[in-house]
Amino acid sequence: MGNKARIPDSENPRVVIVGGGFAGIELAKSLNGVNVQVVLIDKTNHHTFQPLLYQVSTAGLEAESIVYPFRKIFDEQPNFFFRLAQVISVDTQTQVVETSIGFLRYDYLVIATGATTNFYGNKEIEKNSIPIKNIIDALSLRNTILSNFEKALQIEDDEQLNSLIDFVIVGGGPTGVELAGALSELRKHVFPNDYKELDFLKMDIHIIQSGPRILNGMSEEASLKALQFLENLNVKVWLNRRVESYDGYTVVLDSGEKLITRTLIWAAGVSGAPIEGLDKKCILKGSRIQVDEYSKVVGYTNIFAIGDIAAMVTPDNPQGHPMMAQPAIQQGRLLGENLTCILTGKPLKPFHYKDQGSMATIGRHRAVADLKINKKEYKMQGWFAWFIWMFVHLISIIGFRNRLFVFLNWIWSYISYDKGIRLIIGNPKSNKPVEEEVPKALN
Amino acid sequence: MGNKARIPDSENPRVVIVGGGFAGIELAKSLNGVNVQVVLIDKTNHHTFQPLLYQVSTAGLEAESIVYPFRKIFDEQPNFFFRLAQVISVDTQTQVVETSIGFLRYDYLVIATGATTNFYGNKEIEKNSIPIKNIIDALSLRNTILSNFEKALQIEDDEQLNSLIDFVIVGGGPTGVELAGALSELRKHVFPNDYKELDFLKMDIHIIQSGPRILNGMSEEASLKALQFLENLNVKVWLNRRVESYDGYTVVLDSGEKLITRTLIWAAGVSGAPIEGLDKKCILKGSRIQVDEYSKVVGYTNIFAIGDIAAMVTPDNPQGHPMMAQPAIQQGRLLGENLTCILTGKPLKPFHYKDQGSMATIGRHRAVADLKINKKEYKMQGWFAWFIWMFVHLISIIGFRNRLFVFLNWIWSYISYDKGIRLIIGNPKSNKPVEEEVPKALN
Repeated sequence: MGNKARIPDSENPRVVIVGGGFAGIELAKSLNGVNVQVVLIDKTNHHTFQPLLYQVSTAGLEAESIVYPFRKIFDEQPNFFFRLAQVISVDTQTQVVETSIGFLRYDYLVIATGATTNFYGNKEIEKNSIPIKNIIDALSLRNTILSNFEKALQIEDDEQLNSLIDFVIVGGGPTGVELAGALSELRKHVFPNDYKELDFLKMDIHIIQSGPRILNGMSEEASLKALQFLENLNVKVWLNRRVESYDGYTVVLDSGEKLITRTLIWAAGVSGAPIEGLDKKCILKGSRIQVDEYSKVVGYTNIFAIGDIAAMVTPDNPQGHPMMAQPAIQQGRLLGENLTCILTGKPLKPFHYKDQGSMATIGRHRAVADLKINKKEYKMQGWFAWFIWMFVHLISIIGFRNRLFVFLNWIWSYISYDKGIRLIIGNPKSNKPVEEEVPKALN
Repeated sequence: MGNKARIPDSENPRVVIVGGGFAGIELAKSLNGVNVQVVLIDKTNHHTFQPLLYQVSTAGLEAESIVYPFRKIFDEQPNFFFRLAQVISVDTQTQVVETSIGFLRYDYLVIATGATTNFYGNKEIEKNSIPIKNIIDALSLRNTILSNFEKALQIEDDEQLNSLIDFVIVGGGPTGVELAGALSELRKHVFPNDYKELDFLKMDIHIIQSGPRILNGMSEEASLKALQFLENLNVKVWLNRRVESYDGYTVVLDSGEKLITRTLIWAAGVSGAPIEGLDKKCILKGSRIQVDEYSKVVGYTNIFAIGDIAAMVTPDNPQGHPMMAQPAIQQGRLLGENLTCILTGKPLKPFHYKDQGSMATIGRHRAVADLKINKKEYKMQGWFAWFIWMFVHLISIIGFRNRLFVFLNWIWSYISYDKGIRLIIGNPKSNKPVEEEVPKALN
């Protein structure tokens, strides 16, 4: 056995939480004041507010407003320890996690590793498309979008030009829909001013959706209205289509149609990101970990899973809960209480998901929201839904400073019709000089 | 000859400006409304407010607040065109610039490429140290500083620990001094809260200065007071020392002393970044281009150089002007007027540098300022100088949005004693997991 990760000694049992997404931080918070040592492991040093990643990609928000350092969140929680590390595997016999900074003993292990982009095994698409799952993805996409327009100024050929200024989004869930809305705002209000030499009637935005409707986690009304909003914004929605192949230039759909773009944004699916060393039997379809109603991983007594990674399969809920922030937050909070019950010998409370509904925004003044308040459903679309969307997202952001900066950015964009952060910083997925990348035929 | 860069045809003479620093954008602005076609070429899509780079490195400001897209600055200037490209060389006979996006004809060429970090030919130092000249450097340094502390938590050996948490800054100019001040604030107010397991009495900050005093472009009083401020903040200033070698771990000074650090920040010198193809005769010491008092490059009639790259050597001024924002801005503005004079056949005005003084801040409430107002000199140190420093920097930042965000960040930091942007995003110069990087002896 190699070196040990250094964590201060403690008389209290150690809870190791792997992953600082919504579930992980909610659990860590709810263990404040409890007689345990909390060790949070993450491969970044910050929590990411994933619902707003698309606004970072489209120059509306700076990355720094939607990510927040873990150490700052838990500043005043004495039983909390953070380690920047990657988990390699777990040995459930000896109760040790192997990480990039050494071995770490646990009394209770909580897997909150979330989800990763699912390319359904298509390596070609994985190589050529851009996911939008973390902050680096989001910044890469921003760099790519902006670089495309800079390059487009040098192009004469119509097809080549369109390959740079057309965007294809795969996936008609909230991320795909919100991203399409934001891109169409850039097309309408921002880019024509920046790139006066280009004809923005030529810029196309496509959404490819495998099923018969977009936002299929929401009500029929919401789906239809969102589709109408997108069509009003001149976004082309392709329903009942799947991407067969993408070589970095031509998107081939299963219906035989072809689209030309250098920017395929993959917002189509996620799968769990489980840890090596767990019994294969507890890993379900989509790589999620099967847990019971106490978030306990099936077959173990001191290993738990919460958030996107956990599939809490019950007769009511054969697929587990939706892979979204709300179930993650609620599971994290309840597991905190249940761990306290375990330590004090009290009976555990089973998890009941309190669905508060969901929502998506599609550009300025337009959103759809299905809200559930006290078991009553409220469906709304348009202006008022848009206000609710903004309010709910603002209060969910961690930290007063970030909340203020997001709010100011929104006010600013609203008044000026502008997105100020049109910056190419660092290495986009394709920030090579034009001549290296544009096919030779062009020159 | 290869492909041509595509710029719309114009009847007016074309002014190609290479580089969008202070000099380049000031010139482009002053050509607004003049009958020329202005083409600005830069390898990034944004202007960088270099004086505040050190605050990005030390988690005080987000990158997005101090960089500003060129296209946004020149939004409403019809004769302005921007191209994201690198300049490869110039052919002064045919009046063509070769760039990464093709060849570009010019009538007037203005070289405003600024300065680059000068390692004085020491390849080992260049490889192992971190410069702080552009926004990528600044973000790399932020990532490195924060990663160091994360790694330090895993280290037992005292020397190894110090190699991670000690910082050596080479160069006692404004950048070095301001950076040391900001690091000492992090040490005092921020890091002890984040890394409660570390003993911050062990963290050392060093400045190495080759001459007998720091801030040697300023008055004796300012130098002495700045030294005193730094000593009060427990920054160790080594005067009359040069770095002989640095292997990434041990800094060897010419006096024989050794310092251990994994982070050597190189703020020691700059040299010009001239363009290939100019007559070697006009390139002076430090790779600056010799120009006359009209910013015309010696030996040419339609090539100019302004800002850091230009050495306007006169009997009064045998070294050229200081490589700072003020001369760059003033030269850019005057050249705009003089180009208009050339086009209309009016006599040109020679450049006279209006020195407004200089200043540097050293942490909270402390700054030194030598101001020149109407040829009178005002020297001040302390609180009032600190207010003036903030005021002058705030009004110099481009764009209301950036100014507001910098101001809010400063207010926030002032009230909370906090620096909120403690984020590791992307690839720092050394963001490898500890075990890959810490010498084997440790494990």
